Amino acid sequence: MYVIGERINGMFENVKRAIQRKDAKVIQDLAKQQLTAGATALDVNVGPAAADAEGAMLWLAEAIRGVTDAPLSIDTAKWDVMCAVVSKIPGAKILNSSKADPEIARQYVALAVEYGAALIGLTIDSGGVPGNAEKRVELGAQFITIAMEGGLAMDKLFIDPIILPVNVAPQNPAHCMQAIAQLRLFADPAPHLLIGLSNVSQRCSNRSLINRAYLAMAMAQGMDGAIMDPLDEELMNTAITADLLNGKIIYCDSYLEAARHV
Amino acid sequence: MYVIGERINGMFENVKRAIQRKDAKVIQDLAKQQLTAGATALDVNVGPAAADAEGAMLWLAEAIRGVTDAPLSIDTAKWDVMCAVVSKIPGAKILNSSKADPEIARQYVALAVEYGAALIGLTIDSGGVPGNAEKRVELGAQFITIAMEGGLAMDKLFIDPIILPVNVAPQNPAHCMQAIAQLRLFADPAPHLLIGLSNVSQRCSNRSLINRAYLAMAMAQGMDGAIMDPLDEELMNTAITADLLNGKIIYCDSYLEAARHV
Repeated sequence: MYVIGERINGMFENVKRAIQRKDAKVIQDLAKQQLTAGATALDVNVGPAAADAEGAMLWLAEAIRGVTDAPLSIDTAKWDVMCAVVSKIPGAKILNSSKADPEIARQYVALAVEYGAALIGLTIDSGGVPGNAEKRVELGAQFITIAMEGGLAMDKLFIDPIILPVNVAPQNPAHCMQAIAQLRLFADPAPHLLIGLSNVSQRCSNRSLINRAYLAMAMAQGMDGAIMDPLDEELMNTAITADLLNGKIIYCDSYLEAARHV
Repeated sequence: MYVIGERINGMFENVKRAIQRKDAKVIQDLAKQQLTAGATALDVNVGPAAADAEGAMLWLAEAIRGVTDAPLSIDTAKWDVMCAVVSKIPGAKILNSSKADPEIARQYVALAVEYGAALIGLTIDSGGVPGNAEKRVELGAQFITIAMEGGLAMDKLFIDPIILPVNVAPQNPAHCMQAIAQLRLFADPAPHLLIGLSNVSQRCSNRSLINRAYLAMAMAQGMDGAIMDPLDEELMNTAITADLLNGKIIYCDSYLEAARHV
């Protein structure tokens, strides 16, 4: 399971303050904590309030690179910000994210290939978030084709079916699972299938429970990546246990600890 | 989700003692507690130590019928015990269980039809527990055919793919999920797909965590029934949440409480 830690995001008050005060230690602690807890990569998002998105992204990346070489998921919806920072951030990178419109997807694929980065491709286009599984599969398959044509290896492509909150879109979590189950069959080797997990429970009660249950359910369908909170210990335990029950790791009494130190 | 409470089983010390002492209140309390917690039906198993299995089963059933009309899952591997008690236990019943050998399955189907009972059909035959998903699907499909020929409606058939402990059979939980996903497509309407959940974590550490994760994963694949412990509150919460995320119930802030009072 490829866990991208979600905690370095300017929508969190502590990160927002750290960006404003240039307090690198707050960011570096969050980076180390998430990696120790089992994250493989770290999402980096300056948040909606950052006045200088490019400068804030570069400062965050520099702070994080002071303590780890883990892949950084450059999380911005702005193409110009992505282009400006990608060449300046050293080490492994994930471009997060591109929509599936062909002309947009081709640009992102080319950028990812140029910098040896991975790419998160959303099953959303200018028509908005699909209302069913079929349209997600169609857009995901289109993204896979564009990636192949552009020379991006499948192990560097993460398809994200776009999960919506279950209180707003009751059938959406089921649609995303169906899309995951189908999209993993579209190429061999398959691309990664990933979701922004916390979104499923936005503004719900029992958020951690909903996140845990959906993580296990989506992993049963073939999801092998998530942007999520690795500091939620029970959530990480669920991810590791789902890998166990999918037959991907072998049981020992201390399997939870063992998996965190791989 | 069709939850069959597992707690009235002679392998538990309190139930074993209650059977020996004819202490009906212990059994009745367990029945009421499980139903209040969200169970739909109650498994009844006299345990391996009961000298008079038939007498003990009838006493348990009579005690339970003193407090509820909920369906009782008559849990015995002995054909003669099943035959002897089925006519004497009033109300809704589930015969638990039959192997898939055609001559055995036909007998159980006929018995279930005669008494208007439901039936749990195992994907196991005289060849033992299948080592892969394919053989489970083959035996499950065979059972579905025999049930149809014998006049047992699909909503009265529970196919059980036989879950083994993950510490003993590492690939078995994944095989069972694959079998569930395929078997639910074999008839329309589909039979119920059910597992004896606790078995997946026998002699494992983190039993409750493993049970919760597997419950959610198997429900994502279409499992709609389980013999499980409804008194494990987090496990029941996971079952309800998986129904929510499968789009089977609609979110409200108190969805956990609401689902228990349906």
